[in-house]
Amino acid sequence: MPEKESSVPPDAPTRRGLLGLVGAGVAGLAIGGVGGAGIASVLAKGAAADDAAADSDDGIVTFYGAHQAGITTPAQDRLHFASFRMVEGATRDDLIALFKDWTAAAAKLTRGEELGSGLEPDNSYLPPDDTGEAEGLHAGHLTLTFGLGHALFVGEDGTTDPFGIKHQLPKQFEPLPNFAFDLLEGTQSGGDLCVQACADDPQIAVHAIRNLSRIAIGRAHLVWSQLGFGRTSSTSRSQDTPRNLFGFKDGTMNIMSEETKALSQHVWVGDNAPEWLRGGSYLVARKILMTLESWDRSSLREQERVFGRTKRSGAPLSGGAEFDQPDFSAQQQSGDPAIDVAAHVRLAHPDNNEGTRILRRGYNFVDGSNPLGQMGGGLFFISFQSDPAAFVRVQKSLKPDLLNEYIRHVGSGLWAVPGGVKKGEFLAQALFE
Amino acid sequence: MPEKESSVPPDAPTRRGLLGLVGAGVAGLAIGGVGGAGIASVLAKGAAADDAAADSDDGIVTFYGAHQAGITTPAQDRLHFASFRMVEGATRDDLIALFKDWTAAAAKLTRGEELGSGLEPDNSYLPPDDTGEAEGLHAGHLTLTFGLGHALFVGEDGTTDPFGIKHQLPKQFEPLPNFAFDLLEGTQSGGDLCVQACADDPQIAVHAIRNLSRIAIGRAHLVWSQLGFGRTSSTSRSQDTPRNLFGFKDGTMNIMSEETKALSQHVWVGDNAPEWLRGGSYLVARKILMTLESWDRSSLREQERVFGRTKRSGAPLSGGAEFDQPDFSAQQQSGDPAIDVAAHVRLAHPDNNEGTRILRRGYNFVDGSNPLGQMGGGLFFISFQSDPAAFVRVQKSLKPDLLNEYIRHVGSGLWAVPGGVKKGEFLAQALFE
Repeated sequence: MPEKESSVPPDAPTRRGLLGLVGAGVAGLAIGGVGGAGIASVLAKGAAADDAAADSDDGIVTFYGAHQAGITTPAQDRLHFASFRMVEGATRDDLIALFKDWTAAAAKLTRGEELGSGLEPDNSYLPPDDTGEAEGLHAGHLTLTFGLGHALFVGEDGTTDPFGIKHQLPKQFEPLPNFAFDLLEGTQSGGDLCVQACADDPQIAVHAIRNLSRIAIGRAHLVWSQLGFGRTSSTSRSQDTPRNLFGFKDGTMNIMSEETKALSQHVWVGDNAPEWLRGGSYLVARKILMTLESWDRSSLREQERVFGRTKRSGAPLSGGAEFDQPDFSAQQQSGDPAIDVAAHVRLAHPDNNEGTRILRRGYNFVDGSNPLGQMGGGLFFISFQSDPAAFVRVQKSLKPDLLNEYIRHVGSGLWAVPGGVKKGEFLAQALFE
Repeated sequence: MPEKESSVPPDAPTRRGLLGLVGAGVAGLAIGGVGGAGIASVLAKGAAADDAAADSDDGIVTFYGAHQAGITTPAQDRLHFASFRMVEGATRDDLIALFKDWTAAAAKLTRGEELGSGLEPDNSYLPPDDTGEAEGLHAGHLTLTFGLGHALFVGEDGTTDPFGIKHQLPKQFEPLPNFAFDLLEGTQSGGDLCVQACADDPQIAVHAIRNLSRIAIGRAHLVWSQLGFGRTSSTSRSQDTPRNLFGFKDGTMNIMSEETKALSQHVWVGDNAPEWLRGGSYLVARKILMTLESWDRSSLREQERVFGRTKRSGAPLSGGAEFDQPDFSAQQQSGDPAIDVAAHVRLAHPDNNEGTRILRRGYNFVDGSNPLGQMGGGLFFISFQSDPAAFVRVQKSLKPDLLNEYIRHVGSGLWAVPGGVKKGEFLAQALFE
């Protein structure tokens, strides 16, 4: 570890991140990663990251802050994502009470504390308040990020106002359009509320979703949920670049928590939004099945052509190293473009999307296998952006993407993520004021 | 870490196990765990464990040995379990070739090495030999444990000999009978071959199953698979006791890798078996759904009565600490037994099963949620025993188990696990000699 930079607070980058950096990322950094900055400089930048991302050795990521945690927080390795629907006949008071209860529970869960009276109620003829399976596992960098669906504001048919918050609906918040390769299943799409639980240990994330689900009883119920086991993006320069199930490095060009200016521009909702959403964001989730067996039969040449990057190092096919900018005008000896006109890296690049960037925070998943004996796996894509239109723009650009041959979008959701919660207040409190 | 015991080899217990011991298990040990032995003594015992369980700081668990790894190996945290069926018309030569190919691949995978020509085939018009998603993740204590199903010996209808190995079928190897609470689904049961992949990182386990599945193409195909995220048993005294999704400590009375004599008696198949099975075992897998929402509504008193143990410490309701033997004759003040006559701990105990013990190695799972909005989670039970009759005896004893109110068995399988592979030989080689 670098000793030179004494201004770096000891709690700036996570232990995990540091290990990743030292273990795997040093060569890449030396060649030209993060714009040629040295390691000490990277760590110093890490220290300037968002409040919610602040972290310490006890594995606790603070729940309270200007923004919700779980967005710029260095991406934890495990996910349990859940979607909830308000029960028939639930009232505004029910919604407020739910948000108050979830806020109190989230603050405890993210500190690794037992809920309520814990494993042992005062009266043993009562159920325990905490289901107990995370007992002894500590906080594990658990973050809980809450989002509100479109129907919460205007009802399922878009014409009602079930909770008296219709006037708080931002005009940007429109349901996602249909995209060319959508094969969406209702059982894995939408919902009035979402909770993204990320942690180092899946048992911690599962415990959080399970207990939030219990707390919601009579007001909201779980409609679908998804486990993810391997992050497919880094959100901090202190992290190494992970691989997706196609075996390629993913998230190389992600917005990092150190890019304060880019976060303000592309991720955080600004001051002209309703108060409850300021400092918040929009969360898009897409369950993307990968036809892994077809992919695995394709040649290295085809795979690299699809992504526009090399498989081993993740460098653009125009040359250089992983973190170098792709040169879309570069040509092969044959005169063909070095990066195919329909390569993923080209179509998704800000240069092809009027400068649009989104913060990705997806996870690999495998749900077992399908009746054809194929692995039912893929990418549970999650992105955060200050305007849903940003995702729509990029996704439309991907229509000719070579990758579409190997993927199917089967689930989708869009939620508005309120700003961070201040101590003493509750989630989205300004929505009701 | 204890400094006194200089005779302990540095590579005896895993780093993870040690951390668990120091972080969570010391109090329990001091009170009476592992028969009152001190930590140094535990570590020394750990060093005497099975070859296959031998481990070093590089995260490599040796594939070769007297027994297959993944049985007494300190239980890793993550599982990907897969079942395969031989394709229609596959021959004896196909089966032999598959076992040779799987053996070579398993040796490489467990060392964290890329398969074949790795990510980059010599000719880029070919697919890469290795799918690549575990690149950079190292060995991660991956173990691969292979098993052979009954139908492999006698065909699906029990009357044929598709691979010329019918004469090698041990007489103990009969399909499991139906049990009282079975609600088995064919899509999660049985199979000609099974592979249990355990590792520290699920991406490593998934990568292994995926690549073994690729290698099997044209000879065997995946029929079902299951991910597990939290181990529910310890298999070494160096590990802390984990919790199942009912929030209770599980595996307290498991056979530990340090119990060499008990392993010989209850886990390893002895010398009167066909040569290919000597030093092997029988693997039972049961996919057990838990009705978590019902459980969570039951009182602490009910939950503890069901298990016969306290929720927080795992101590038997007859008193003492977690590792103390339950006293089944102990009474409450009311005169009722302290441990209910139908408590799980009583019915599963060797005293109630003619001394039968099995080595458990199960995992928690959550597959998302079901159409009722309930979490589709539970226990993927795995046990190893020297005779399938041992599992059958215990499972039959559990018929009146209070736990049956809260669980459903939906998947089942039984496989014979050949002995360990010697260097230069291949899996189950003696089967074909």
